[in-house]
Amino acid sequence: MAISQHSIYEPLTESTAVALAIRLRLFKEGQVLHCEEIGDGNLNLVFHITAQGKQKGIIIKQALPYAKVVGESWPLSLKRATIESNALLFAAEYVPTLVPKVFYTDETLAITVMEDLSHLQIARAGLIEGKTFPLLSEHIGTYLAKTLFYTSDFGLEPSKKKLLVQKFINPDLCKITEDLVFTDPFFDIDTNSFEPELQKDVEEIWADQPLKFEVAKLKQKFLTQADALLHGDLHTGSIFASETETKVIDPEFAFFGPLGFDIGQFIANLLLNAVSRAEQDREPLFTHIENTWDVFTTAFTELWINEGVEVYRNVDGYLEYALQQAFEDAIGFAGCEVIRRTIGLAHVADLDGIDDLERIIQAKQHALRLGKELIRNRKTIDSLENLRSYVSTTETP
Amino acid sequence: MAISQHSIYEPLTESTAVALAIRLRLFKEGQVLHCEEIGDGNLNLVFHITAQGKQKGIIIKQALPYAKVVGESWPLSLKRATIESNALLFAAEYVPTLVPKVFYTDETLAITVMEDLSHLQIARAGLIEGKTFPLLSEHIGTYLAKTLFYTSDFGLEPSKKKLLVQKFINPDLCKITEDLVFTDPFFDIDTNSFEPELQKDVEEIWADQPLKFEVAKLKQKFLTQADALLHGDLHTGSIFASETETKVIDPEFAFFGPLGFDIGQFIANLLLNAVSRAEQDREPLFTHIENTWDVFTTAFTELWINEGVEVYRNVDGYLEYALQQAFEDAIGFAGCEVIRRTIGLAHVADLDGIDDLERIIQAKQHALRLGKELIRNRKTIDSLENLRSYVSTTETP
Repeated sequence: MAISQHSIYEPLTESTAVALAIRLRLFKEGQVLHCEEIGDGNLNLVFHITAQGKQKGIIIKQALPYAKVVGESWPLSLKRATIESNALLFAAEYVPTLVPKVFYTDETLAITVMEDLSHLQIARAGLIEGKTFPLLSEHIGTYLAKTLFYTSDFGLEPSKKKLLVQKFINPDLCKITEDLVFTDPFFDIDTNSFEPELQKDVEEIWADQPLKFEVAKLKQKFLTQADALLHGDLHTGSIFASETETKVIDPEFAFFGPLGFDIGQFIANLLLNAVSRAEQDREPLFTHIENTWDVFTTAFTELWINEGVEVYRNVDGYLEYALQQAFEDAIGFAGCEVIRRTIGLAHVADLDGIDDLERIIQAKQHALRLGKELIRNRKTIDSLENLRSYVSTTETP
Repeated sequence: MAISQHSIYEPLTESTAVALAIRLRLFKEGQVLHCEEIGDGNLNLVFHITAQGKQKGIIIKQALPYAKVVGESWPLSLKRATIESNALLFAAEYVPTLVPKVFYTDETLAITVMEDLSHLQIARAGLIEGKTFPLLSEHIGTYLAKTLFYTSDFGLEPSKKKLLVQKFINPDLCKITEDLVFTDPFFDIDTNSFEPELQKDVEEIWADQPLKFEVAKLKQKFLTQADALLHGDLHTGSIFASETETKVIDPEFAFFGPLGFDIGQFIANLLLNAVSRAEQDREPLFTHIENTWDVFTTAFTELWINEGVEVYRNVDGYLEYALQQAFEDAIGFAGCEVIRRTIGLAHVADLDGIDDLERIIQAKQHALRLGKELIRNRKTIDSLENLRSYVSTTETP
């Protein structure tokens, strides 16, 4: 792997992508290569290159210098490609089986060449189809515990951590979250997008001062609390999965933020899938949420005890306090994520894909009620059982 | 002002310091210059250069690549000189009359050339002599409100703030605070320094698990909560004062930390002076503490309303919440500072300079009791009246 500073940025084409793959000797000589651009063209180009007759190829991902959103171009720093490849390389030290292998990066071209994961399925798509991915929560709980612990002041010498904080300063991508998750959905701002049937529910949110006060506090934590290196966008669309494997991709939003944020985003997206289903079909999602938290706390506790670097780690109650804070924040962040995925700019297929408008509206109203309760009651929700009961009680108004 | 990258670091002498002053044309041609090194030789060289017959000259401050502490050399990054000059230049934008003017900086030589403030007195020394510095709290309250507000997400666009966070990452100097303020005094560590008469009091602190739990939480805030650009070492020895002027110096510990930290350090050092005095002589210190907080909240509130950039700033209760958090943290940080200045590595002349051993011990025991109460009760101390009563009730065991 090498980082070249000599090239000039220009978008790859299918043929220049193949030329790069050949130059990097990622295929045997003489193989016939096939290349397809499979990205959505929104933020990045994604080239899938395979050799004729072979299943597994490589992926070349290249950041574009803008994002196509709300009908216009939004300039976005190419540095996010560097952030993404650095985050993948960093995660590979602690959870090598849970992230794609990186073969090559080029900072100027904003390129990451990595493992082809096309034998797996995006978790969101699979969950929508009713797949359960039995190891998903075991893997994500482990991913969260290790990536968060080893980059926090609990597991990393504070001076070293500060240099990483510096390296992962990520203003452009954080701004997207600050606006689209924590701000716009709670105000009458034109990035929001929702069905006319939801107008009354949405206006209730905009007028709800106590709710907005709680969201303001959560936003402040996101803005200021540099606990650990986050993935920053850990929804079920950032996870490839199968019956046996799980790979976390796309950490371009990585930065040092609050311990509970990734956990909250992941839980929220499982809840959004749960809400999209009939009540009797939700159990696998609850099981995943419960197990994610159990695996996370067990692994985090073990690391705290055996590899902790903080002198105060043995003080009575400190570990429990840190976990409780993370849980409370995660529930609050989950509430924000549930709301913004329902009425904000970026929706989820779990809800939008429901095949009946009346059921879409019901599910979205359910999501909005649930999101509000999570934000309001995050300090008293003290168990997964409790969380589950909020999903039930918010089913109807 | 220019930053040269071409020089090689070497410590200045009195004659090379004068040569630099001449090269920079800071004195009229033909003037006879006098130079004296007036630093304590611990962390920095400080050259005071004056022209014959003139009162006011210039100061050349140069960082040394080590700190002489606990009898040995502790390597320290020269980058702190850059941090210091950047922090001074930054503060000059918002509180130009409350910091020394910077004339020149050289990053490689770790030099800041600045205004001579020798017509003023270090506030700690003056307070020990019984001076009151009538404008001290008015000025420091204003300094705190402006420097903190304009560098926080409340007053600065978050993307711009993040670039400043990156610029002011300060691992070496933060580590000194993490160790000497938040850790060492609460454990049996050999950097601590206290009279044998205090052994029992100190051992009580080391064994006090609930107290240590609270200190752990405060340390965690210091480690993670990047609210605003702090001075980082705002004790009364970092302030020059007179009847009419106040100048904050030495911001080499500057970094983005919790809103309450500078406030807490300043309050703590006023409390340490109060504790060193007979009960009937403490009023001027209480008045300063009260006025610092009043001026700070009034100015911060005005900035919040008129110049706030956070969309949530008008949400009911948010400003009060932000101020309450800052106050609570400030009280806790003040408690840590009071304790560490009594039994840690770096003492204060307010206590050590008392001219009778028995009274020293009594005052230090008072300081330890007070420090513990501030840490424990920071969530319930809700007024300066309340704080004053803790100073009284901890006078005797």
